[in-house]
Amino acid sequence: KEASKVPVARFLPPGFTTEKFQDFASRLQAIVSRENLFVVTEDTALEDGDYLTIDCQTHDMHFLYEREEFVGSALVHPRNVSEVQEIVRLCNEFVMPVWSISRGHNIGYGGAAPRVSGSLVMHMGTHMNKILEVDAENCFCLVEPGVTFLQMQEYLIKHNLIDKVWIDAPELGFGSMIGNALDRGVGFTPYGDHWMNHCGMEIVLANGELVRTGMGAMSSPEGRKQAKAGVPPQDQTPNECWQLFNYGFGPYNDGIFSQSNNGIVTKMGMWMMPNPHGYTPFMVTYEKDSDLPAVIDIIRPLRVNMVLQNAASLRHVALDAAHYHPRTEYTDDTFDVPLTEEQLDAAAKKLDLGRWIYMGAVYGPEPVRKALLEVTKKEMCKVPGSRWFLLEDRKEEFSTLHSRAETMMGIPNWDELRWLKHWIPNCTFLSFSPISKVDGQSAWKQYQMAKNRFAEAKLDFFGIFSIGLREMHNVICIVYNREDAAMRKRVQWLVRTLIQDCADNGWGEFRTHVGLMDQIADTYDFNGHALMKLNETIKNALDPKGILAPGKSGVWPKSYDRSKWALGQDYIK
Amino acid sequence: KEASKVPVARFLPPGFTTEKFQDFASRLQAIVSRENLFVVTEDTALEDGDYLTIDCQTHDMHFLYEREEFVGSALVHPRNVSEVQEIVRLCNEFVMPVWSISRGHNIGYGGAAPRVSGSLVMHMGTHMNKILEVDAENCFCLVEPGVTFLQMQEYLIKHNLIDKVWIDAPELGFGSMIGNALDRGVGFTPYGDHWMNHCGMEIVLANGELVRTGMGAMSSPEGRKQAKAGVPPQDQTPNECWQLFNYGFGPYNDGIFSQSNNGIVTKMGMWMMPNPHGYTPFMVTYEKDSDLPAVIDIIRPLRVNMVLQNAASLRHVALDAAHYHPRTEYTDDTFDVPLTEEQLDAAAKKLDLGRWIYMGAVYGPEPVRKALLEVTKKEMCKVPGSRWFLLEDRKEEFSTLHSRAETMMGIPNWDELRWLKHWIPNCTFLSFSPISKVDGQSAWKQYQMAKNRFAEAKLDFFGIFSIGLREMHNVICIVYNREDAAMRKRVQWLVRTLIQDCADNGWGEFRTHVGLMDQIADTYDFNGHALMKLNETIKNALDPKGILAPGKSGVWPKSYDRSKWALGQDYIK
Ligand SMILES: Cc1cc2nc3c(=O)[nH]c(=O)nc-3n(C[C@H](O)[C@H](O)[C@H](O)COP(=O)(O)OP(=O)(O)OC[C@H]3O[C@@H](n4cnc5c(N)ncnc54)[C@H](O)[C@@H]3O)c2cc1C
Ligand SMILES: Cc1cc2nc3c(=O)[nH]c(=O)nc-3n(C[C@H](O)[C@H](O)[C@H](O)COP(=O)(O)OP(=O)(O)OC[C@H]3O[C@@H](n4cnc5c(N)ncnc54)[C@H](O)[C@@H]3O)c2cc1C
Repeated sequence: KEASKVPVARFLPPGFTTEKFQDFASRLQAIVSRENLFVVTEDTALEDGDYLTIDCQTHDMHFLYEREEFVGSALVHPRNVSEVQEIVRLCNEFVMPVWSISRGHNIGYGGAAPRVSGSLVMHMGTHMNKILEVDAENCFCLVEPGVTFLQMQEYLIKHNLIDKVWIDAPELGFGSMIGNALDRGVGFTPYGDHWMNHCGMEIVLANGELVRTGMGAMSSPEGRKQAKAGVPPQDQTPNECWQLFNYGFGPYNDGIFSQSNNGIVTKMGMWMMPNPHGYTPFMVTYEKDSDLPAVIDIIRPLRVNMVLQNAASLRHVALDAAHYHPRTEYTDDTFDVPLTEEQLDAAAKKLDLGRWIYMGAVYGPEPVRKALLEVTKKEMCKVPGSRWFLLEDRKEEFSTLHSRAETMMGIPNWDELRWLKHWIPNCTFLSFSPISKVDGQSAWKQYQMAKNRFAEAKLDFFGIFSIGLREMHNVICIVYNREDAAMRKRVQWLVRTLIQDCADNGWGEFRTHVGLMDQIADTYDFNGHALMKLNETIKNALDPKGILAPGKSGVWPKSYDRSKWALGQDYIK
Repeated sequence: KEASKVPVARFLPPGFTTEKFQDFASRLQAIVSRENLFVVTEDTALEDGDYLTIDCQTHDMHFLYEREEFVGSALVHPRNVSEVQEIVRLCNEFVMPVWSISRGHNIGYGGAAPRVSGSLVMHMGTHMNKILEVDAENCFCLVEPGVTFLQMQEYLIKHNLIDKVWIDAPELGFGSMIGNALDRGVGFTPYGDHWMNHCGMEIVLANGELVRTGMGAMSSPEGRKQAKAGVPPQDQTPNECWQLFNYGFGPYNDGIFSQSNNGIVTKMGMWMMPNPHGYTPFMVTYEKDSDLPAVIDIIRPLRVNMVLQNAASLRHVALDAAHYHPRTEYTDDTFDVPLTEEQLDAAAKKLDLGRWIYMGAVYGPEPVRKALLEVTKKEMCKVPGSRWFLLEDRKEEFSTLHSRAETMMGIPNWDELRWLKHWIPNCTFLSFSPISKVDGQSAWKQYQMAKNRFAEAKLDFFGIFSIGLREMHNVICIVYNREDAAMRKRVQWLVRTLIQDCADNGWGEFRTHVGLMDQIADTYDFNGHALMKLNETIKNALDPKGILAPGKSGVWPKSYDRSKWALGQDYIK
């Protein structure tokens, strides 16, 4: 029997017996071929690997509970869109939950881990990883799920396009452009809001149907001919305006496919930034911890007026300290004694920085940059003790400004990993990011609140205020040794407490880890969770069997009992 | 009996008898009170009125077929959100279609007219017309449906806020901010894409539930207290980040409520442009008709690089000719002899303009503007015969540049109506706007195609290329005498032929008139209209009885038989 060829899975989704799984898996194998199906068995070692060398796809390498908490039954690597469609149809038949990733590098948010253990994890990026188009005149690209920021960067260099267009990358470049944008990730050029800068999607729906959104919903003249000749929709030449105009005609649906479980994206367009032909990064340091509110209040008008052209980031010194040296350089204490104020002051001094470090850049031709820099310097240096640096002012090895200067040009680099690599052993990262007003008082209140909770949890505080067009993402980095169970437990307590603290103040998170989605969704409580009811109605209409990523963003299909599945504030192990 | 108090309606929706309507209307009257229900009876004169003095709400004053083609049974003016909810519940009970407008000034697209005759037209703006907030620090506002651009403009002036924030208005200011943004209207400052600049919505769904999207989905601390004290959701203090961050957490739903029939918007936030503290409008004229492709190819890189900071518009001279004088000034021929090339040349000469007129502006402090203006002038004047004008170079009365200089600051003005007021008698306006690449060849092909069809239809061609961030809206203005049935018929033929011509080339429209929605939706044909199927699935899930604006954007709920209702290419009367 064919099923006997498939290994026995270690984790099974709800409603599956080993036998049913094997039936399913043998059917699946017939679609994708043996080498594209990998079953997680009792013998599979869940290896975290290294950030650089290993693509950890079986689980969350930055696990918050146990390695085994969110693990799929199998990993499948479809070779093309029609295989994705076949897989989705098969999943409907068997009611198999399927969790799609493009690269699975969603570090800080769950990596490759599915929300429902035993799900089929579909790695969209292994084979579908082509850059389908880069139009350097009209400044856009069209990519498949597997395309990474690094790959795009290399492509632009190889094709001599970098003097025409830039990419915008998150700090690290190994993630996928599509996965990052779908999770509403950010970068640090003026094109930093990746969701805002996407244009046109191709999606496989839960029923296996293929949709192109926006102008892609109109066939091109060639596409119509190809359709007649039997070319499948996904291979038809798209409408030439697909990547030029987002909305198309009628309801604009793209948003319901971001941070959601309503579809599987197979192609997406992104707008690229024209090379601004001129770029000057800069850094401002602030002496005192208590300078925070004054700095934020200076930033607000500059940012909203686009004098600060990119997602301005104000870094807490601990982050820079960790970038330069391991923790032992700053303290002799163990990990459960957080750095003290004095140690942070000493670190700032030792590194010739401040308690807060602002990194920004101006873009454009010389006279424009000059005008912007002048205002920026004048305003941002109004705080007593502030200091202004340009690239040439920082000559130390591994300078954060020099590293950041690349990031702010959209060039991902590995330096951004330094702090994770050497701060503490098995250094692990959980991202917690409440949204707030760009306002000194809010920033201070949020910072104090977080710092106190970090102290209670006996953890070092790390954070960056990343200032968008009208709000701040306060990216708080929770850093721990994942092999230390007691520390992990403190982290669970910390993050769950902070979620509640923030919600009490009306602050909500913009993105999160799979293990925290339920609690965060629950904080969006207006009118008896009216928005969640809307999300559920749409989910159930599009995916009646509830196969696509059940539980993503806290949205459970009707076939799952939320009261049993949701992981709330008390879920601390 | 109460029902007897309600007048007999002239137009009834499907499934309604006079008696059923009267039952419905008397129940409705009990909700809103007598003075807020206006039934269209046999005796109701359908008055077009004047663009300025009369708010035509009964029908499309710029009708394309007959005045009586798209007319509601009654007009209702809810006084608050809970009345809207009650009305929606009543409509579900009676299966009454309801068409919501905020001001009904959607001229060129159907005005206040419902797609399904006999619908209840719900005027959201009569009573719900408050500016709820203008935050000049964070540069946003929160408004109710009735708030017009003019009203906002007056508010800013009255509260001395105009030196802090600008609005972005369409050419005319009598429309609602909400209705215009929902229909994805545009303006002419750098904030011209109104949908892109909305932030946060409050919506009544078809089931009567109230939803706030984005960060509004999280209650504010005060809101939670109010909820406990029994304050209804719509009156609870919103989350302070509602107008600051669009996406919130999880699926981002806003888009499915634009150009759609999925909900009724009761509040919406808009981002406002910080006063740029410096502004220089300019104009470039081009001598020859055939200059078009060269000009467009010059514009593309300037626009994508934001050297041209606002939605650049390139106007065909006929528009300016009409702005200055009635048609009789340029020709002795009747309306069915379109202006000739010679007459257009003569008009350009007479007005000291060109065959194409570019109007733009630069924004920002002096050195920035200087740098941008220099590049712009150098590039845009490369075309032989081009001429450059600043405000002081145009001293004639009613100068289009002076008028446009206001529009490009977001200040709506009545001058934009001059051409409609005097060009021909009963001058009527239908807007037809295909999207294309920003590329000389596309522009030329589209222009030639349109011009030839106008000639066949014996109509004067009017058009503006409005250049967005990556594409052009080619806003073609079809202008006719609505009292001339033969001319109207030629217009019907023209627009329906152009829709097909454009679709054949892969060009789709971004917005349209109620009478043309079906045909245009039908041109979005990729993969057997896969996007429409998605739209329908969502529609049917959210509005199972199909009461909200059936047929809007071509989306028909399952209770309507599309094959009977759709108005296609052959619908010419
Ligand atoms: C030191 C450090 C710095 C970082 N800095 C940043 C930063 O600056 N900005 C930032 O945004 N992130 C940052 N991250 C987080 C993360 O590494 C990146 O966001 C990364 O790009 C995400 O991984 P990915 O693109 O491979 O997405 P994936 O893991 O493939 O996917 C992300 C999400 O989208 C869903 N998804 C993916 N593909 C599809 C598809 N085809 N169809 C449907 N759903 C899909 C997945 O289910 C998942 O929920 C950082 C992480 C670290 C460790
Ligand atoms: C000379 C001239 C120039 C023009 N220039 C421009 C221009 O530059 N830019 C531009 O965009 N338009 C322009 N227009 C078209 C039009 O006048 C404006 O777009 C106007 O703002 C639309 O009217 P309104 O805002 O009152 O919208 P409404 O008519 O109230 O609504 C517009 C659409 O949204 C829907 N809607 C409205 N309110 C709600 C709600 N609360 N809930 C759900 N759905 C709702 C309606 O059903 C309708 O489909 C122009 C028209 C003319 C005659």
